[in-house]
Parts: sequence; structure tokens; C-alpha cells
Amino acid sequence: MRFNPRTSSDGVTEQLFTLDEIPGVLWTPEDAAGPRPLILMGHGGGQHKKAPGIVARAHHFVAESGFAVAAIDAPNHGERPKGEEFARIVTEMRGRAAAGEDATALVLAMHSLLAGQAVAEWQAVLTVLQQLDHVGAGPVGYWGMSMGCGLGVPFVAAEPRVGAAVLGLLGATTLAETAARITVPVQFLLQWDDELVPRAEGLALFDAFASAEKTLHANPGKHGDLPRFEIDSSLRFFARHLG
Amino acid sequence: MRFNPRTSSDGVTEQLFTLDEIPGVLWTPEDAAGPRPLILMGHGGGQHKKAPGIVARAHHFVAESGFAVAAIDAPNHGERPKGEEFARIVTEMRGRAAAGEDATALVLAMHSLLAGQAVAEWQAVLTVLQQLDHVGAGPVGYWGMSMGCGLGVPFVAAEPRVGAAVLGLLGATTLAETAARITVPVQFLLQWDDELVPRAEGLALFDAFASAEKTLHANPGKHGDLPRFEIDSSLRFFARHLG
Repeated sequence: MRFNPRTSSDGVTEQLFTLDEIPGVLWTPEDAAGPRPLILMGHGGGQHKKAPGIVARAHHFVAESGFAVAAIDAPNHGERPKGEEFARIVTEMRGRAAAGEDATALVLAMHSLLAGQAVAEWQAVLTVLQQLDHVGAGPVGYWGMSMGCGLGVPFVAAEPRVGAAVLGLLGATTLAETAARITVPVQFLLQWDDELVPRAEGLALFDAFASAEKTLHANPGKHGDLPRFEIDSSLRFFARHLG
Repeated sequence: MRFNPRTSSDGVTEQLFTLDEIPGVLWTPEDAAGPRPLILMGHGGGQHKKAPGIVARAHHFVAESGFAVAAIDAPNHGERPKGEEFARIVTEMRGRAAAGEDATALVLAMHSLLAGQAVAEWQAVLTVLQQLDHVGAGPVGYWGMSMGCGLGVPFVAAEPRVGAAVLGLLGATTLAETAARITVPVQFLLQWDDELVPRAEGLALFDAFASAEKTLHANPGKHGDLPRFEIDSSLRFFARHLG
């Protein structure tokens, strides 16, 4: 793993890194020493490791609770090269969307295409980050909405080091079976007026998790309208289970 | 209004009162002086103003946030005499439940029977409590589950002094129209495996509120299994809107 120099603002240190071909970023408290909970954040489709929502949430988590937070560019996203099949699916998705047609099947096909690689990458990144003195082998959480949920459900189901997850903004169609293997506490966010995910599909994905403790938070608004107070609610959920 | 002597424990002062024929209880911080947010708590069917859940929640709210909390015995509940029609409905409810039949229609008939009186009583109690120096005319919230929601929806819809409400554990059947007149922020609690309220009915009641800000919190478990962490979540909701 190669690390870039650290930069700090408002008590939060940011450090870009590269593991093999995976570009990532780690946020920790400026004076961090010793192990602490680590939250892995999966960005949404078309976004990247430093999308504004990821950065804002990471800063809040680090500043308020002293957690470490890491994000990586998903395959074919951010600084990473785009593969041919991915490019073909995206072109077709845009075509359907422009024609006013439903592109859901293509979105889910794209998640399936990326999931296997994404799970292995998160596992490799997690292993290396936990060797750092100021992260350590503490409790691990995962946060991911939309594509970050589509890649996160298989990751959380496969990875026993993850002890709690905040997921959401996606439906059960291709994920219900995998979700039924997840038993750690889950907080699931659903937008009541989501134009991309039918309400019944979202409720069905919440229903599918095998977790004894799971909480659905539903709020009015469209896919991109998650209310700001859910940032703090996610942190409290992680603090309750990992803190 | 007649007040009994105050008693205190762990920094929380409890004072029983009677307004006309309504027995109530007020909890405030031991050293309270000046106005503060006031949360009115409506108990569930068959319960009373000092049911363990009400007392635990009141102590948490007062100790953590310095709020005032008040509860009263609903008509025909707690220390209050039971009327003939109420007794008749309860007897019929128990008979149906014993026979394994659905008693929902009778539960809702009971709420309707009590609602008009309960709304007027909460309004009278609120007016008098806000004249106390250590409560004052600060912001007001309402918290009520099950019957506390059945009587709370008409109260919150009718009473402009209420600025935020936590409601839940009840369905839309007889409440949707009234809920559609509520525009203040609402946090709505739903038990995913509620044996008394069909899931679709609970979701429909959440859907009915006209509030621009409303959040559904759904958790696994039956009608009586609200998780403890929702106590703190309710307080944070009130603090956000009334604090």
C-alpha cells in the first residue's frame, strides 16, 4: 500500500492511498493513536471516494466519535479505468433513461457485474488498514446507499469482520437471498418517494435481512433527498454497536 | 388545579396533580426555573399515567435534556371511574379476544368514544401547566403509542401549540383523515411483526400525515416490543424540533 502525505483540517486528517490498483482515502482524528472503530463507506453509482456526501459524513463521524473512516473508488468509478462491458451497460442505461424507459434491470446488472470484484477489494483494503497503528483491529462497520448498498450487501454477508451496517436506497429484486445471510445489526434507509426504487421493493429488502436487530428509517423525498439528520442517526447506530 | 407535594429522585422531581377530575403527573428537573420544552405523554390502552414505560421515558427526557414531561390518566383509565359504555366495549373486546376473534373494530370504537373528551382534557391541562414558572409557555411535543396515538392524532391535529409529535403502533383505518390535517414534524414508530396492527395499516397511517418532515422507524417485534433505543431516538427528535 502506498500512502500520500497527510493533510488535516478541523481536527480531521485525510490520507489518500493506493492498494494495488485501488485508490482510497482514510480519515482519522488528527491526534489518533491506537485502535478505533473503522467505518467503510461505499459510494453511489457514478460517484467516487470523495463525493461530497461521503466527505461530509466521514468528517462528522471522525470529529464526533473519533472513528476512522475509509472510502475507495468502486471498480470503473472515480480515478479507475472503465472496462468495456461496464461502458456498454452505462451507454445502454443512458439511452433507456433518455427515452423515458425503466433502466432498473441494467442498474442491477451493473451491480452484479461489479460485486464480486468489489467484495474482494474491500476485504483486501480492510486487512491492510487494520494493520495501521492508528486504526488497528477494532470493530468494523459498513455504510452504503444505492450502489453502495448493492455492493455492500454481498460484502457484509461475506465478511465476518463487519459488525454493523447502514444500508439503503435499493430494492430486494436481486439482493433478497444475499440479505437473508446477514445477521449483524442493520439500519436501513428508504426514501418514501424514491423515483428509482419502488417502495414495496425497498420494504422487501428491509424484510429480507436475517438480523435480530434491524431498523427501517423511511423519510419523504426522492432518491437523492436523504435528510441531513440521518447522518447523525447513522453515527449513533454505529456508536451503539461498535463504540 | 391541586398539587400534591413534590418528591425527587436522581435529579428528577415528580408532582402529582388533579385538574377538575383529571389526575396527572408532572416531571421536571429538580432545580428547574423558567420556561422549557414540555412533552405530553399519552399512555396505551389499559395503562395509566404512571405505567412503567411512561415513567422510564419521562425520567430519561428530564434527566438528559431538562425538559418537562406530563402524563394524565385517559378517560376511564387509571384512577378514573369507568363509564357504562366503556365497560360494555371492554367486556365485548375481551370476549372476542378470548374466542380468538379480531377485536380491532372494538379497539377503534373505544378510541373514538374517548377522543373528544381526551382532546379537551389535554388542552385544559396544557393551558394550566404552561402557567407554572418552571414549565412556562415553551415549545410543546406529544408522545403516544397505540391508544396514545389514537387519542394523540386528533389532539395534535386540533392543537396549534403542539410543535412535534412521536406517534405509532396504530393503523390508518379510522385516523387517516385526521392525520392528513397534521403538518408538524412526526416520528412514527411501527413494529414490523405487530400482532394487533396489520403492517400495511401502519404504513398507511405514516403515509397519511401531511407533515413535510416525518420519519418512519420500523423495528422487528410485536406490539409490546418497542426497542429501548427508540426512547433516546424520540428525545433526539424532540430536541431537534423543540430544543
